[in-house]
Amino acid sequence: MLPTILDLATLRDLYASGGLTPVSLMQEVADRMAASNDPAIFITALDRASLVRAAEDLLARHPEPNALPLWGVPFAVKDNIDVAGLPTTAACPAFAYEAQADAEVVARLKAAGALCIGKTNLDQFATGLNGTRSPYGAPRSVFSAEHVSGGSSSGSAVAVAAGLASFSLGTDTAGSGRVPAMFNNLVGIKPTPGLLSTTGLVPACRSLDCISIFSASVGDGLAIRRIAEGFDAADPFSREAVPHPLPETGLRFGVLTPGEREFYGDAEREALYDAAIARLEGLGATAVPFDYAPFREIATLLYNGPWVAERLAAIAPFFAKHADALDPSVRTIVESANGYSAVDAFEGRYALEALRRRTEATWAKVDILLLPTSPTTYTVAQMQADPIRLNSHFGHYTNFANLLGYAAIAVPGGFGADGLPGGVTLVGPGFSDEALGSWADALHRSAASGMGVDRSAILPDANRNPVPEAPAIGLVVVGAHLSGLPLNHQLTELGGRLMTRTRTSREYRLYALPGTHPAKPGLINEPGFVGPSLEVEVWALPPAGFGHFVAAIPAPLGIGKITLEDGSHVSGFLCESHAVRGAEEVTGHGGWRAYLASR
Amino acid sequence: MLPTILDLATLRDLYASGGLTPVSLMQEVADRMAASNDPAIFITALDRASLVRAAEDLLARHPEPNALPLWGVPFAVKDNIDVAGLPTTAACPAFAYEAQADAEVVARLKAAGALCIGKTNLDQFATGLNGTRSPYGAPRSVFSAEHVSGGSSSGSAVAVAAGLASFSLGTDTAGSGRVPAMFNNLVGIKPTPGLLSTTGLVPACRSLDCISIFSASVGDGLAIRRIAEGFDAADPFSREAVPHPLPETGLRFGVLTPGEREFYGDAEREALYDAAIARLEGLGATAVPFDYAPFREIATLLYNGPWVAERLAAIAPFFAKHADALDPSVRTIVESANGYSAVDAFEGRYALEALRRRTEATWAKVDILLLPTSPTTYTVAQMQADPIRLNSHFGHYTNFANLLGYAAIAVPGGFGADGLPGGVTLVGPGFSDEALGSWADALHRSAASGMGVDRSAILPDANRNPVPEAPAIGLVVVGAHLSGLPLNHQLTELGGRLMTRTRTSREYRLYALPGTHPAKPGLINEPGFVGPSLEVEVWALPPAGFGHFVAAIPAPLGIGKITLEDGSHVSGFLCESHAVRGAEEVTGHGGWRAYLASR
Repeated sequence: MLPTILDLATLRDLYASGGLTPVSLMQEVADRMAASNDPAIFITALDRASLVRAAEDLLARHPEPNALPLWGVPFAVKDNIDVAGLPTTAACPAFAYEAQADAEVVARLKAAGALCIGKTNLDQFATGLNGTRSPYGAPRSVFSAEHVSGGSSSGSAVAVAAGLASFSLGTDTAGSGRVPAMFNNLVGIKPTPGLLSTTGLVPACRSLDCISIFSASVGDGLAIRRIAEGFDAADPFSREAVPHPLPETGLRFGVLTPGEREFYGDAEREALYDAAIARLEGLGATAVPFDYAPFREIATLLYNGPWVAERLAAIAPFFAKHADALDPSVRTIVESANGYSAVDAFEGRYALEALRRRTEATWAKVDILLLPTSPTTYTVAQMQADPIRLNSHFGHYTNFANLLGYAAIAVPGGFGADGLPGGVTLVGPGFSDEALGSWADALHRSAASGMGVDRSAILPDANRNPVPEAPAIGLVVVGAHLSGLPLNHQLTELGGRLMTRTRTSREYRLYALPGTHPAKPGLINEPGFVGPSLEVEVWALPPAGFGHFVAAIPAPLGIGKITLEDGSHVSGFLCESHAVRGAEEVTGHGGWRAYLASR
Repeated sequence: MLPTILDLATLRDLYASGGLTPVSLMQEVADRMAASNDPAIFITALDRASLVRAAEDLLARHPEPNALPLWGVPFAVKDNIDVAGLPTTAACPAFAYEAQADAEVVARLKAAGALCIGKTNLDQFATGLNGTRSPYGAPRSVFSAEHVSGGSSSGSAVAVAAGLASFSLGTDTAGSGRVPAMFNNLVGIKPTPGLLSTTGLVPACRSLDCISIFSASVGDGLAIRRIAEGFDAADPFSREAVPHPLPETGLRFGVLTPGEREFYGDAEREALYDAAIARLEGLGATAVPFDYAPFREIATLLYNGPWVAERLAAIAPFFAKHADALDPSVRTIVESANGYSAVDAFEGRYALEALRRRTEATWAKVDILLLPTSPTTYTVAQMQADPIRLNSHFGHYTNFANLLGYAAIAVPGGFGADGLPGGVTLVGPGFSDEALGSWADALHRSAASGMGVDRSAILPDANRNPVPEAPAIGLVVVGAHLSGLPLNHQLTELGGRLMTRTRTSREYRLYALPGTHPAKPGLINEPGFVGPSLEVEVWALPPAGFGHFVAAIPAPLGIGKITLEDGSHVSGFLCESHAVRGAEEVTGHGGWRAYLASR
């Protein structure tokens, strides 16, 4: 029996067991699309024959189940992203064209075995955060036929939340990949700008646009992002990633001060934000109040500043002829671009850089920010009655992120008594995409709010990820660098995080080096020796941090390879053997910490 | 007898010997200023009493000769940079104000003992490359009273070239710190944007402006830059430097193809460019023709694109009231800003990013670019007759650099038969400022063209630098990583460069490790052992490259500290002692290379 939510682990298990084939899944997807009670999800939905044919094509090329990381995984694509052979409308029929090639990201996902099921509805030209600005109708939250789905990636979010697709592509300039995730109890992966290629995307604000991912779990979203990401020379805004680590224990997360709390009267959503803070603290992280003011001011630049000119730049020749073809709210925003000069554009940049500097005080005391994804939600009727003002409420906590080049992951945050979901977003520095994942996943699990429309769904095992994280450089520490010992700060200051506590193989001897301050041991490998094995910690450091660390180590210590009790070889502390001659051997204590305690 | 050119080493030697004091030097500077045949160098020159008082103040605080790195070194400051207590005019009298504080860079130089002698003339608002756009007159090249000095940092260049100051501060947005260096036989240090604070600078294009340095030698310029540079939280465009290394041997430098050569008919300057190419090849570097077209297209964006709006943004309230107060050419340029919309500004950014991508093919095959600094020069009369068109010729090879975030060093390039100087600029990726220096210095020396107005001056010893380079991470290699051996490519691929060939101390033994492919030695430190000392190479790696390198080393090898024959301790290869038991000792060969040759 296929569950409603089509997470990757469930599909892989069913494919592996023979209980499902891509063809039978596509038949099921076609059934679900036909039975859907929301007619506004798709702008172009593939018909049953096309869905089945795509599955058959995959089987012809890769018959072995799970032969590819996304083998037979159905996904939906926001209709401002090209899929070869399908129209791209950007929710503006007069603008539509048939795409000649897949967008780079779509091509990478298809190459990994994913099957596109259709093109989804959006706020026209991705201009909006609510999902009602489309001539193709307004998708609704899967939890209320009265309430907006969120936007602009409206159909993409609902398609995953309703179980029509395992994941979907959205885009996120202001918050379009995060707000609909909250309104539909999903994970929204908002990558660092430049991490995913935008080749084949209809721009909203070219300097800021990100392709984003909606998924049922953080693990799924990370796996998909790892496949979709990567440098693309054809995209002038594509960037080589330099991963930014986060602490794996002792995370400090920024939380809103009372004066910066804005929920537009929505006490349910505010209570869910407080609950998320408490849950993240329960996971061992520390809440740190921070000054949201500079972030808030940056957020207002996006629509009330020169960046709206990018929205006109994106469609200027079309707009010159077809302004009447635009949604009235979208037209109002695009037309406002004409009020800004090049001087305004540069002054906007100066304002941004000055505000960016003001945010640095926050980053000196927190590792990430934890913010409400959207302060509140509205019904379609409310939104249509006051479309620009109420839309702006949704972006209160999202609009700054791309102007500052940050990574963000929106996760479900439980439900209010009104039956509508809350949600929080973890925001980290650029290229913290991967490091944010483990905290986002743990926070999602702690919410116990299911996945998508299925509030009782059990999240898949976090370790069932078909695409592993790129490794950092591991470092085995055995002495004064252990957690809590005098030199441990050297690791944390270089961006290190504790990966695991384990032991060496049994072929090591440990000596107390005479005359060292703080006291340090020397570790010597002696093949054939059988000792008790020794307590060590494995830390992960970014490559540059690791380099600085090694360079600072004084003789007679150095970094070689340590064999751990599981047989793996990891960089770690060794000692020149001449230095241990005559030194006290402390191997019998089983580790440096035990030796220190015995003195 | 004080030489004309006041390079740092000369002053330090004279101060150390007692042959000169800061007071006597200031008297000499006052004499030289009074005797100068160019009345247009300064906008505000300090009078004799003020110069002497500044020297006396220094002596009161730091009486010991050379107590500070720039102790008693006279410098001039372009009059768009604040010096406390002096007017800042930006060469526009109606704009003038008295500066309340030193610009950050000025403050750092003064704190290092440098003595400001005055504020220098410039093309108004730093808008120009020729030096004639000022109501304070047009400084002349020190080699021709008919010819322009270059600009916009006109007075700053002439002050150093004429021996009034040891160095000076200019600014460089389009090329204002490089073009006047060429016209006056000086070194022009154009730092990576963000490396030197712009706090206290009247902006030209705030997103691009750099404070630059004119000096007699590259070594002087680097020393001054190291003191002046550094992150400044008050400057929103200040950036933390991440040094970019360059190869110390085997440099590949891009040279213009025949189709991209543009000297506006100046065969003398073209011949000097060819001569510089030949000299750099003679230093062991390899000339690689590259496609200048995308760089040339980026260069045109600066004045024929939306960036001119920054020049209006910088002075908008003033310009609204006092447009009549502007130099006619400067006014024309500033007014052209009104022709650009915010859409144009963003489209300019898109064009830049697309062109930047096109430059990457060049960076895949070269380490630096070697370009003419200016293609040609003109007389003041010629320039005044056609001020905008001829000015643009000067920027043909400079205007792209700041838009792309590059570092550049302009060096003298000899003289034509017409008695006028040529010049070339070494252009490197962002934060290659330091690495560019050694090549720039060698190229300057090979030109044998003296310093400033003194064409026969002998350049100071390159090793007489009072401010040493920030250290990269050194790595001692002893075996298969030596130059020409099988694993050497691992170092070069990680950005490593060979620093020196030397030997270990005599307390090391070397063993041939059995069963290694390629064959590797093991180095063991044995205190008390007296051997022949062993051949090693010291390589420098960027920190991240060093980190990756260490992480990839297999057991039984590792990285510890090696004692070299000079007693220094540098990170380098060590071997776990268990691995050399029973191995062949090869210490007697004096090194791995000699052992390999003996087999």
